Amino acid sequence: METEKIILGIDPGTIVMGYGIIQQKGKTLEIIRMGVLKLGKLDNQALKLKKIFERMLEIVEEYKPDEMAIEAPFYGKNVQSMLKLGRAQGVAMAAALYRDIPIFEYAPRTIKQTITGNGSASKEQVSKMLQAMLHFDEVPEFFDATDALAAAVCHYLDRGKDVNYTKPKHSRKSSSQQWAQFVQQNPERVER
Amino acid sequence: METEKIILGIDPGTIVMGYGIIQQKGKTLEIIRMGVLKLGKLDNQALKLKKIFERMLEIVEEYKPDEMAIEAPFYGKNVQSMLKLGRAQGVAMAAALYRDIPIFEYAPRTIKQTITGNGSASKEQVSKMLQAMLHFDEVPEFFDATDALAAAVCHYLDRGKDVNYTKPKHSRKSSSQQWAQFVQQNPERVER
Repeated sequence: METEKIILGIDPGTIVMGYGIIQQKGKTLEIIRMGVLKLGKLDNQALKLKKIFERMLEIVEEYKPDEMAIEAPFYGKNVQSMLKLGRAQGVAMAAALYRDIPIFEYAPRTIKQTITGNGSASKEQVSKMLQAMLHFDEVPEFFDATDALAAAVCHYLDRGKDVNYTKPKHSRKSSSQQWAQFVQQNPERVER
Repeated sequence: METEKIILGIDPGTIVMGYGIIQQKGKTLEIIRMGVLKLGKLDNQALKLKKIFERMLEIVEEYKPDEMAIEAPFYGKNVQSMLKLGRAQGVAMAAALYRDIPIFEYAPRTIKQTITGNGSASKEQVSKMLQAMLHFDEVPEFFDATDALAAAVCHYLDRGKDVNYTKPKHSRKSSSQQWAQFVQQNPERVER
């Protein structure tokens, strides 16, 4: 029996929220969709939260993901910006909780490391690696979309390992090995 | 035609979430219910958020509030605790957003000032004032319940004034006058 699973990755912010959806079918991984939700024009925070929640519900209803991966930074400029970010994350997570979708959190550094092998990789490097892995040409307007996709792919690569459910993994010694291992096991899926 | 309105007040935290529901019928104000949701035993943050969201949805479905008032502090120990608080607020707000219920935020100081006339009042003083206003004897186990109730009553007293939708009002010069005005207009509703 083939494993089939849909993973929704999100990168919630207060100005732009990115999302990316991938599907695993057996040993292949496909990109289903990625995009961003622009929130900058809404000057009312409640309207932003409402838009995030509604769009997330739509995405959850449409693609019926089995799991959600979220890019979650654990530091910020100040407590005010962290409160706002927490709210944006909270309403996005609520849409998943509403449909009993398990949520997994990954620190930005972990995602970069898992995808590129380098925890300090640039967003552009992450994006390029994803393009190679998932065979898409179109470069999205915002890196928030590829960042969200990266969270989903990170979760896919991470699955089966010792996943700390909803707990951040700031330093994962094993994750630098993971991409190398993935490449080794799936040479046909990497463009060189 | 009498004005009839149900206001849900919440005080979301990461250990205990308080809620209080009041109903305005014309010029009378009644307490419908108050209580707390204990989250301390859940060591998994996702489970906490799920519990907050589900309980909030139940409350929203059962009491069908017209408006929601939230006690929202704007400072915290550190960015980590603010992110967690933001998430708790976010999922609670999502339940209201799901039913298109407008959300109004009040800073703790504003609530205390509006209820007691003193922005530095203790939780006990706020609780006692609410007991007097709403004629309930039973003192709840946690002040989170009366704090939530206070947010709802603050919104009730504040309504009709220049409400900044979802924007905090740190300093409201007029609010210290409000309780005095309320007492003057409604002497029968205050126990002395």
